[in-house]
Amino acid sequence: MSVSKNVKLPHLFYGGDYNPEQWPEEVWKDDMRLMKKAGVNIVSIGIFSWAVLQPGPDSYDFAWMDRLMDLLAESGIMADLATATASPPAWMAKLHSESLPVDENGARYAQGSRQHYCPNSKAFRLYGQRLVRKLAERYKDHPALAMWHINNEYACHISRCFCDECTREFRVWLEKRYGTLDELNARWGTNFWSQKYYGWDEIGLPGKTPTYANPGQQLDYMRFMSDSLLDAYLGEYRILKEITPELPIMTNLMGAFKPLDQFEWAKHMDVITWDSYPEPTAGIPVFAAMQHDLMRGLKAGQPFILMEQVTSQVNWRQQNPLKRPGVMRLWSYQTIAHGGDGVMFFQWRQSKAGAEKFHGAMVTHTGDENSRIYREVEQLGQELRRLDALVDARVEAEVAIIFDWHNWWALELDSKPSRDVLYLEQIKQYYKALFERNVGVDFVRPDADLSRYKLVLAPALYMIAPGVQANLEAYVQGGGTLLTTFFSGIVDENDRIHLGGYPAPLRKLLGLCVEEFDPMLPGQTNGISVSGFGDLRGEFACNLWADLIRLEGAQPIAAFTSDFFAGSPAVTRHTFGQGKAYYVGTQAEAGFTSGLIGAILGEAGVQAPLEAPAGVELSVRRGADGARYLFALNHNASAVQAELPEGRFADLISGRELAGSLELAPNEVVILQKRQ
Amino acid sequence: MSVSKNVKLPHLFYGGDYNPEQWPEEVWKDDMRLMKKAGVNIVSIGIFSWAVLQPGPDSYDFAWMDRLMDLLAESGIMADLATATASPPAWMAKLHSESLPVDENGARYAQGSRQHYCPNSKAFRLYGQRLVRKLAERYKDHPALAMWHINNEYACHISRCFCDECTREFRVWLEKRYGTLDELNARWGTNFWSQKYYGWDEIGLPGKTPTYANPGQQLDYMRFMSDSLLDAYLGEYRILKEITPELPIMTNLMGAFKPLDQFEWAKHMDVITWDSYPEPTAGIPVFAAMQHDLMRGLKAGQPFILMEQVTSQVNWRQQNPLKRPGVMRLWSYQTIAHGGDGVMFFQWRQSKAGAEKFHGAMVTHTGDENSRIYREVEQLGQELRRLDALVDARVEAEVAIIFDWHNWWALELDSKPSRDVLYLEQIKQYYKALFERNVGVDFVRPDADLSRYKLVLAPALYMIAPGVQANLEAYVQGGGTLLTTFFSGIVDENDRIHLGGYPAPLRKLLGLCVEEFDPMLPGQTNGISVSGFGDLRGEFACNLWADLIRLEGAQPIAAFTSDFFAGSPAVTRHTFGQGKAYYVGTQAEAGFTSGLIGAILGEAGVQAPLEAPAGVELSVRRGADGARYLFALNHNASAVQAELPEGRFADLISGRELAGSLELAPNEVVILQKRQ
Amino acid sequence: MSVSKNVKLPHLFYGGDYNPEQWPEEVWKDDMRLMKKAGVNIVSIGIFSWAVLQPGPDSYDFAWMDRLMDLLAESGIMADLATATASPPAWMAKLHSESLPVDENGARYAQGSRQHYCPNSKAFRLYGQRLVRKLAERYKDHPALAMWHINNEYACHISRCFCDECTREFRVWLEKRYGTLDELNARWGTNFWSQKYYGWDEIGLPGKTPTYANPGQQLDYMRFMSDSLLDAYLGEYRILKEITPELPIMTNLMGAFKPLDQFEWAKHMDVITWDSYPEPTAGIPVFAAMQHDLMRGLKAGQPFILMEQVTSQVNWRQQNPLKRPGVMRLWSYQTIAHGGDGVMFFQWRQSKAGAEKFHGAMVTHTGDENSRIYREVEQLGQELRRLDALVDARVEAEVAIIFDWHNWWALELDSKPSRDVLYLEQIKQYYKALFERNVGVDFVRPDADLSRYKLVLAPALYMIAPGVQANLEAYVQGGGTLLTTFFSGIVDENDRIHLGGYPAPLRKLLGLCVEEFDPMLPGQTNGISVSGFGDLRGEFACNLWADLIRLEGAQPIAAFTSDFFAGSPAVTRHTFGQGKAYYVGTQAEAGFTSGLIGAILGEAGVQAPLEAPAGVELSVRRGADGARYLFALNHNASAVQAELPEGRFADLISGRELAGSLELAPNEVVILQKRQ
Repeated sequence: MSVSKNVKLPHLFYGGDYNPEQWPEEVWKDDMRLMKKAGVNIVSIGIFSWAVLQPGPDSYDFAWMDRLMDLLAESGIMADLATATASPPAWMAKLHSESLPVDENGARYAQGSRQHYCPNSKAFRLYGQRLVRKLAERYKDHPALAMWHINNEYACHISRCFCDECTREFRVWLEKRYGTLDELNARWGTNFWSQKYYGWDEIGLPGKTPTYANPGQQLDYMRFMSDSLLDAYLGEYRILKEITPELPIMTNLMGAFKPLDQFEWAKHMDVITWDSYPEPTAGIPVFAAMQHDLMRGLKAGQPFILMEQVTSQVNWRQQNPLKRPGVMRLWSYQTIAHGGDGVMFFQWRQSKAGAEKFHGAMVTHTGDENSRIYREVEQLGQELRRLDALVDARVEAEVAIIFDWHNWWALELDSKPSRDVLYLEQIKQYYKALFERNVGVDFVRPDADLSRYKLVLAPALYMIAPGVQANLEAYVQGGGTLLTTFFSGIVDENDRIHLGGYPAPLRKLLGLCVEEFDPMLPGQTNGISVSGFGDLRGEFACNLWADLIRLEGAQPIAAFTSDFFAGSPAVTRHTFGQGKAYYVGTQAEAGFTSGLIGAILGEAGVQAPLEAPAGVELSVRRGADGARYLFALNHNASAVQAELPEGRFADLISGRELAGSLELAPNEVVILQKRQ
Repeated sequence: MSVSKNVKLPHLFYGGDYNPEQWPEEVWKDDMRLMKKAGVNIVSIGIFSWAVLQPGPDSYDFAWMDRLMDLLAESGIMADLATATASPPAWMAKLHSESLPVDENGARYAQGSRQHYCPNSKAFRLYGQRLVRKLAERYKDHPALAMWHINNEYACHISRCFCDECTREFRVWLEKRYGTLDELNARWGTNFWSQKYYGWDEIGLPGKTPTYANPGQQLDYMRFMSDSLLDAYLGEYRILKEITPELPIMTNLMGAFKPLDQFEWAKHMDVITWDSYPEPTAGIPVFAAMQHDLMRGLKAGQPFILMEQVTSQVNWRQQNPLKRPGVMRLWSYQTIAHGGDGVMFFQWRQSKAGAEKFHGAMVTHTGDENSRIYREVEQLGQELRRLDALVDARVEAEVAIIFDWHNWWALELDSKPSRDVLYLEQIKQYYKALFERNVGVDFVRPDADLSRYKLVLAPALYMIAPGVQANLEAYVQGGGTLLTTFFSGIVDENDRIHLGGYPAPLRKLLGLCVEEFDPMLPGQTNGISVSGFGDLRGEFACNLWADLIRLEGAQPIAAFTSDFFAGSPAVTRHTFGQGKAYYVGTQAEAGFTSGLIGAILGEAGVQAPLEAPAGVELSVRRGADGARYLFALNHNASAVQAELPEGRFADLISGRELAGSLELAPNEVVILQKRQ
Repeated sequence: MSVSKNVKLPHLFYGGDYNPEQWPEEVWKDDMRLMKKAGVNIVSIGIFSWAVLQPGPDSYDFAWMDRLMDLLAESGIMADLATATASPPAWMAKLHSESLPVDENGARYAQGSRQHYCPNSKAFRLYGQRLVRKLAERYKDHPALAMWHINNEYACHISRCFCDECTREFRVWLEKRYGTLDELNARWGTNFWSQKYYGWDEIGLPGKTPTYANPGQQLDYMRFMSDSLLDAYLGEYRILKEITPELPIMTNLMGAFKPLDQFEWAKHMDVITWDSYPEPTAGIPVFAAMQHDLMRGLKAGQPFILMEQVTSQVNWRQQNPLKRPGVMRLWSYQTIAHGGDGVMFFQWRQSKAGAEKFHGAMVTHTGDENSRIYREVEQLGQELRRLDALVDARVEAEVAIIFDWHNWWALELDSKPSRDVLYLEQIKQYYKALFERNVGVDFVRPDADLSRYKLVLAPALYMIAPGVQANLEAYVQGGGTLLTTFFSGIVDENDRIHLGGYPAPLRKLLGLCVEEFDPMLPGQTNGISVSGFGDLRGEFACNLWADLIRLEGAQPIAAFTSDFFAGSPAVTRHTFGQGKAYYVGTQAEAGFTSGLIGAILGEAGVQAPLEAPAGVELSVRRGADGARYLFALNHNASAVQAELPEGRFADLISGRELAGSLELAPNEVVILQKRQ
């Protein structure tokens, strides 16, 4: 990990959440033995220890933590030390009931589970930061200390609060953002429905309104809550950075998680970590891969740590099936293939009590090494020790997908033409087409420098904020290939329509105008017909949405086959400067999307690293020394074969030498490096 | 419009909601140009202008409204001026949080959308009426002022409030209604479940009760809320009537809308207006036609204004498809065919911001006349100018359906034999059978004079209030034909059982007793067999409900075919005095209902105005001069033909002369007047 | 009834809830006439009379009750006199709003239906107990008084309250239960998620938490609420017992009703009564039979009274079909066959008003004897008079099912491997297999003496509390046969895992270890294959759950057929001491379960009392004198025949003598006693 100047480990991280306060200390020794046996080199501690560390507002107990840190140091295991603020003690809820969050009906949450704090609560901030300072001062020089873990999964349960403190802070945030009420009124369009404000203290939160709250207000409230949580994080971050400037600091994110603008958060994290819980029966975990790529994109390609996954099964789905044998290992390698520099679990030892006792762990309720689960954990840990070469190697990608939390928030506000246009669903369709072609994908902000990509996709880019139009135009002008889809380019950063004919800021670039749009009912379909675009031809089904497109320079690639707009363009291409801009005015079936993407990739000159059978996932990481590591993962239930390029290859995991034909057993993975 | 002594327009109303405060004033000029081009002659203004008109409790700003009114007058466009009370300003919510409504859990609604007021709020009434007086004084003599529009869609979002002010007012309302607690206790049957009251201040609202609240209390609460909203309306009405006694005053109703007893409201409206939003993909809009007839019935046949419809698509359904080309025009003519003297839209210019920016309008987001939508709006506006002859012409109907809001409320209270017996669903089945036979239908109160109708239907007339039994008996006695259905005649006006065997107050009239009723489960069916009634014979399916009928003079028309009551009567006819009373003791499939209605219409001597193909809707309006206008609307996707009677006809829309065979293209409409 | 020393009736109880306060007194006389005609010998009165008995905090009105009691006594009808506390008067809600219960969001319930009291409310307790004392003092020597009926259906609507009084009482309850906070912290595992408590006043109720509340806290809260309601009951019970020590006292329970630990309640009831409302269209009411057996088990076989059922139809389902003719009688006899010593109805006379006016009654809205319903009521009443011999006869059963409310609560807490494992569903599957084989079943607590049973089933016995392991082991050791199923033996009485490999406390007894469990998704299945166990062989489907079993002495009976654990044991048998322990590690289709139970019954030597066709239910009751009464009920829609054993039999109902072949018409029942 090159997470800071003060790198502690030359190895991939391997370990998990460790909650020894749930166990008698005699168990701790056995934990050390089992950790070492399994190759664990780091554990996260203290995440839910606030109540144990601080019995009351003015009393602390660090003795057990001292013993724990020493034990870890003795055992050669690093500590990812948490600030313990994720679940305040009961005494805080008693003394400061105003610190408990409030829902949109004005009902206050209760202590008794976790995350029962308002992020704007002054009491929560005060007591939390006081504890953080004590922890940092006490352990800043401890040899076990490797990384700081602030709080835990911010906003996992409480992403919105409607308390009085939040109301006051929202007004402050708005005044800072807009300066004047005139500006706010214009941005929110408050002359609609008699919502004009004449004083900052007239503004409330968009809570329990009789019908749709003002969309601008809703959007800003989502920004405000993301910022409020970030501000709570920063309150702790600044203390830690002051006391231990060399140490990496982070919080564990949650992937494609709506409440937090994680591009903004990433600016204040030294390393990205996140928690991944794919559907265990999902087959190939495409969405997990997508989130790995997204998380890697938060810091422009810097490797991330998988802070949590489960060995076997979780306990919070309706039904919680086991991961099949070999699947945990395969998916762990998928993480690394997509830029992970560490694989960790929640949690080390499965709890005896509490709400997560049926959540899987590295050591199960048998309490020892006698379980299939532990054996798989141990095998993986031993393998990872051989993969030091991968540390800080970078994933190669020539394709980017534009991702924007503000767009997500705005697109999924209420009062839309269709409630079925969901951001992730739209992104996933295009990601899947790329994934299945084993093409590496980066995720970037709409205002990112796009010039190094051969293809950029911007599905459902409903919001075009200032600067984005110019960025996209410059990219295509300079020879780039852009694809965007229906209901893009509709609003500005305050969810106000870009007037002048949809999609106003993209009309020039796309060479078309969308005269009307016609959302489809569930089950309703239309058809699109394509006479020949690359290998793509024939008729395909489409649903969800149809744009009525008038061409203004673009050429039709496919046309609708039914309804009063039969024959009008459904998919178009426009040559703009040195590049091309594609537009897809409907949601096509996967076969069409895949064929379209295939043809565009061909045109753009993007290739997979290898010809591989279906169900084999490929990815390439490149070390600082230029070494190239080709991951091949077989997600199929049967063995498959692929032809390797000329030359001899070493498999980093098994140490085997390979050449010619590569055979992969079910769930098997290789990491190939060409012999010099 | 003959809405008052002070008729302003000899034309059908054409226009829409106009919210210029959302736009810079330079846009207003273009609005005028586009309105005139489209034939707009009236616009509704100020509906959501309170916050703009009144920046604070003691300050007002009418300058922009002055300019707007002048501009309209200059442009020859009339103003339907709203009282602006539909959405109070934010400062009122801040100063008077008690004016915000409260839900049944005691949670208070928030400002930030619209309709966030308790109808019984003293602050809301005070500030609202003060504004109304100012508006009326200021514009009473303005040449643009044509009509007053009070508030907007009362109860659309907030039809119930559970605040302390409502509680106190409910007690006052009850004391006024019942005089003594003994009377109230008897009416509500409070000896059930220990609910007896000994003081008025013991009575609360039927809010969050552990299980079913007292049905009498629930029913009176619904009456009270309808009356509270009406009282809020009347507070404004009286001021306007005092200052501008000549001008028509109304509020826009919402069709078959449950919360308001609109027969009662209609007494206090000079003209009925309503807002119609049929399912855009519903095919033939039978339910819209039914609601037009119901709205026309509110003032005994006086023409109504369609105050709102959408040109293209709304934004509040899950998915919001477009109206297909020609459909808006066709449905607009349906409105006129059923007694509409005007067709208006929400709204004139599609908003740039706010919760309704994706709601269609007359001018779309292109901002100009270059849209299919505007072209259709313009065509319709130009056509309507030719239809002055229709103004105040009356729809002809020989059939009436009894409709009663109190019956609706009581029938759909909880704790019933079946929750699937829904009033509108029952009404619709019989309306549809009449509609498909192109028979005109009036809607009337249960205590209306029925003597001019050849046939009266009273589906699901669960409540027989005082006087209704005598009214129905007198009608049939005098030669009328009445049809009623299962679960009718069960309770009195306080939802208390009419004892003595169902349906006690109708037993004599119907010549039968319902010994038991047996609600059916979803998917469950029985059969009814009819050996011959008019053209109706054979076996039909029925579901939902089966009455176990003992005949007491009636003759069976159809009998159940299955279950332990197989062979017992399902449908009966009873000769009573000079007339006949039909009873349908189940919910039959549409084919049976249609056949039954056909046979009864034949017997009663009711005929369609023309023999027309399926999917062609006919209606007749008759002018004060006796002129007869026959509407024919083709709802089919293909052209159809019909034979006209002898003679030559003029089509008022196209000006064409027609004779012999009439051909109607898809979505086409003609309004035929026989040449003298 | 041998419910106490002071037995009043040598007959089976027959009657219903009687609410004469809803009717003018002139109706009462007719009630007496109709009751006598129908054979009614007892009625429940006063259940909802509080408001009528007590017009205000300091005033009472017993005059009407005096007249009613006298009238009953004159008519030879006994009074089951209620304490009237089920629905407090409105004045109490007004004076003591804190007596109204509060939901988990902090919203307070309103007066206006019933059961609107917090069980821990001091005001409710005070006023209620004061009334109880007055009733007891006044009527203690009244000749009509036969039994006390405390409150009504405790927890039917309000089984949880989150008010401040409950919070305080919960702390008191916890301190009493655990003594120290250290103990509580250990039991609840509060070091998980930072929940450690340092003061009793830090502990709240598990209400509106951001996510899963502490399971130990949730479980104790359910215990606390059951205990709080019981304490409210006991407050009244003690007064009654003090004043009328000879009279039986009870409250009406609700069958397999989750909120109350009815084994605990039964300790404080002199006789068990309960209210049974089977799905009217359910076909054979197996679940009603199961609940009769469960209710009989509450006091170890002592006969119970069916306090409420409906003659025709209820009013609280979505749809409320009629019981078909003969069904009420058949199901009434089922009650008696399973140990009922009385059959009563809600209610005597169908209400004219209120929330239950469409709930069926003995006298319908016709108000007289002219209804099918009354005729069936009368016939049954006349028949029951002939069945005095059955009073206090005991049901014979050689099989027991372990039932435990604490297990139910813990099993269905959140955060489980699968939310689809529901206690009653698991119990029902095994009960049904026994029921269909006409094998008598007792329900017993996990710590009951099991030695008299040939077979004991413990489906889904997730919780093994202290003593249970030893009890089960001793039973099998001594020669008993035990069957338990997946997800049994997992936690202790505080929902903490029994560590050391599932199911730790049962591993020795069952001879196996469950290494992992794999919940299945809805629609997902596996197969189990059995090569031969008794008559059981072949392949069967299973779903819901699969245990991965490692044998430790047990023998496999059936094995899974699919997935990575194909071939591993699904069902096992272990010889332990003199007995056998069966384990079923999945949810098998009914055919397998039935076959398995059949084979085990055969092995255990348990037989049906007669060979009977499908759909014929058999049961045996034995009188104190040893007389044996064989009930045979034909639930089929057609007549069936069965061969009787040698000898002549008398049918107690008809008086007929029977021998050889028994023919049973649809819905017919016989009670056979062998002639000496």
